[in-house]
Amino acid sequence: MREVLAEAAFQLFLERGFERTTVDDIVARAGVGRRSFFRYFPSKEDVVFPDHERCLADMTALLEAADDGDPVGTVCDAARLVLRMYAANPEFSVQRYHLTREVPGLRTYELSVVRRYERTLAEYLRGRYDGTPDGPLHAEVIAAAVVAAHNNGLRSWLRSGGKGDAEASVDHALGVVQQVWGAAAEGVATPAAGDDVVVVVAAKGTPMWRVVQKVESVLAED
Amino acid sequence: MREVLAEAAFQLFLERGFERTTVDDIVARAGVGRRSFFRYFPSKEDVVFPDHERCLADMTALLEAADDGDPVGTVCDAARLVLRMYAANPEFSVQRYHLTREVPGLRTYELSVVRRYERTLAEYLRGRYDGTPDGPLHAEVIAAAVVAAHNNGLRSWLRSGGKGDAEASVDHALGVVQQVWGAAAEGVATPAAGDDVVVVVAAKGTPMWRVVQKVESVLAED
Repeated sequence: MREVLAEAAFQLFLERGFERTTVDDIVARAGVGRRSFFRYFPSKEDVVFPDHERCLADMTALLEAADDGDPVGTVCDAARLVLRMYAANPEFSVQRYHLTREVPGLRTYELSVVRRYERTLAEYLRGRYDGTPDGPLHAEVIAAAVVAAHNNGLRSWLRSGGKGDAEASVDHALGVVQQVWGAAAEGVATPAAGDDVVVVVAAKGTPMWRVVQKVESVLAED
Repeated sequence: MREVLAEAAFQLFLERGFERTTVDDIVARAGVGRRSFFRYFPSKEDVVFPDHERCLADMTALLEAADDGDPVGTVCDAARLVLRMYAANPEFSVQRYHLTREVPGLRTYELSVVRRYERTLAEYLRGRYDGTPDGPLHAEVIAAAVVAAHNNGLRSWLRSGGKGDAEASVDHALGVVQQVWGAAAEGVATPAAGDDVVVVVAAKGTPMWRVVQKVESVLAED
């Protein structure tokens, strides 16, 4: 029923536009009553993003079950749940991407959904960084960076028409955040002994993120 | 006129709530006609944030005039314009902070404004990083991190009732981003000679951001 309503709604949005489609149009197309619609969706906007509530619940469950060895890696894994939801249905996701860009009300709705993911990630990190100096600040900055990186990778894939490798696109983007903030970046093995060291020599004027890249590349070589 | 309308609106929002205040109530209180309201504000939400358009214009001007030596420092300076707008009127800003937390429509509106700042900063950085690998990705991640840090500092100050030092709160928060992404962090002089070097020794399992903090502290000692 849920899927039938979402599909009917989406067909109509594409045919006549989001603004000019009413809930009555949607239930008529789906062949159900008006009350059925509101049993599944609080509003016309929600039908465009039918899976975000489930995804948020999955994200919360993943974060609750995570071991705390690599909090940044964990929030990156949590963000990948969103990507997988989009990648499960490329055609629908690409159509929605274009629709969302055209309808201001949907953009606003999407912003509020993205913000809920970001808050969920930040809350987890706040718990992990509890008691450390500037814990809440680090939690919020890292959550925002993870969401921005994820969305950059996701949008690249959507702009390509859902053709390329969505996971690879997002993994690459999240790698930038893990490189800077993570406990150990991609390709770097967890150290077996605590006495392994890395020595970096850099000119003083070098941008900090280039220093980090250099540290990374040295670690990757070992 | 603009200020008179904003003040009348805000008094009414505090007295009877945002939802139960109409534009007619506002113009009656301000003693002007209904058309005057819409000449200044597209909607009831806009009157709660009367200065964001001007601030966005100031931000764009600052970014256009900036020299490009330290793009991350420049976007941090641009973000500080938002802080200064809030700090110019602490009482109003603190009341609005509480009002915004209570009214979902205002939270959504605020999200869309924050997003516009973030896009403005990201667009500037995209231009600066043009032609570098992953330039757009870095631009979006850094813009998101700057906005998150700024908002963390701003909210700390708002939660304190606007009592503390707003600029210090935001400077501290932005310092975390500049430490990781900036060309040179707070307290680190611009290098006079290109051959100054820093040597860092860290255990391989050390989280990357702690490596960065260590690099920073070594640089600061010199």
